[in-house]
Amino acid sequence: MPIVKLASLPTIKRLPSYLHVVEAAQKDGKDFISGTIIAEELELEPIQVRKDLAITGIVGKPRIGFPVKELINAINSFLEWDKIHRAIIVGAGNLGRALMGYAEFKRHGMSILAAFDPSTDKIGKTICGVPVHSLNQMVNKIRELDVHIAILTVPSDQAQAVAELLVKAGIKAIWNFTNVKLKVPGNVVVQKEDLSSGYAVLAVKMARQHGSV
Amino acid sequence: MPIVKLASLPTIKRLPSYLHVVEAAQKDGKDFISGTIIAEELELEPIQVRKDLAITGIVGKPRIGFPVKELINAINSFLEWDKIHRAIIVGAGNLGRALMGYAEFKRHGMSILAAFDPSTDKIGKTICGVPVHSLNQMVNKIRELDVHIAILTVPSDQAQAVAELLVKAGIKAIWNFTNVKLKVPGNVVVQKEDLSSGYAVLAVKMARQHGSV
Repeated sequence: MPIVKLASLPTIKRLPSYLHVVEAAQKDGKDFISGTIIAEELELEPIQVRKDLAITGIVGKPRIGFPVKELINAINSFLEWDKIHRAIIVGAGNLGRALMGYAEFKRHGMSILAAFDPSTDKIGKTICGVPVHSLNQMVNKIRELDVHIAILTVPSDQAQAVAELLVKAGIKAIWNFTNVKLKVPGNVVVQKEDLSSGYAVLAVKMARQHGSV
Repeated sequence: MPIVKLASLPTIKRLPSYLHVVEAAQKDGKDFISGTIIAEELELEPIQVRKDLAITGIVGKPRIGFPVKELINAINSFLEWDKIHRAIIVGAGNLGRALMGYAEFKRHGMSILAAFDPSTDKIGKTICGVPVHSLNQMVNKIRELDVHIAILTVPSDQAQAVAELLVKAGIKAIWNFTNVKLKVPGNVVVQKEDLSSGYAVLAVKMARQHGSV
């Protein structure tokens, strides 16, 4: 798999925050927003903001700033958020449910078409508008619904087995919320989400700010 | 607030993954693990692994590697995960419930003592062993239970108001899962978690791997 240039990964991760700030400016009726304002809002250096936003192809004008509408479109386009991403969720537990109901994803092209869970009291029900099916319907449904993304929120001990089914069904990308490092063919994109990373940063920041507790 | 040296933030975020790998080695009965093995497992450069782990004070021995037990203890100690962090959750929706049930946090010192929610059908109940109280009990409970961390999973339009109550109650750190940039005094640590960041990376990686969909 061609590795995404590491230098740009932090920029990509910051783009959703830029989008929030610029959308808020649009809501306030503004046509332009300065890099300095964006920087203040997000506690970044202005030079960082200009460098990050250059990736979208939009350049700010001196003393006027960035054109709000164009910048919103450019960020959405760069992130591929102006396209529809057909997705499923595997594991309809609390985290799976939280992701199904997450309006930000829907607003940015993520279309969650189905969920899969082994639990018989969930199968046949609908959560946040998403129908829940049994796991053994998964491969067929992925093909039938032309799904490209699978969001994985199963218990860790089931993660690798489910990932293999997903690969077999032709899934192109797995968004992995388990703490298992999945072994999948190189052409399948895996994005691992680790909630523990945030907890690590929080605990270290707290100790540096307030001393060890 | 003294800003955590940015250079070390990516390292801190990677430490939980190192911990997983080294704990797995311990489970397999190994006393030592080589930096190269860790690097392969996590798809990092060996030099990166050695640099990252140096932050914990543990140095690998040539041809033997890192002592497993000492490394686990050193990572936990560096991350302050060997201490108890008394926490509450504000917002007992799906995401709040998912975090209450997240065993990784409990295993690493996070002790979630109470949850708060405006919904009368949740108040008085217990979720994953955590009692749910009404929002207007929050300030008193924080003081009574000597809580330092608040995990914020309320709807975005309530985030700032709740944050102000948390500050008033003397909370030291807010783990912010809303998409609001909170305005709080400089001595309160805020760690913002944005699930959209992961979606951004996933969508860009997919386009680079498979072309635009």
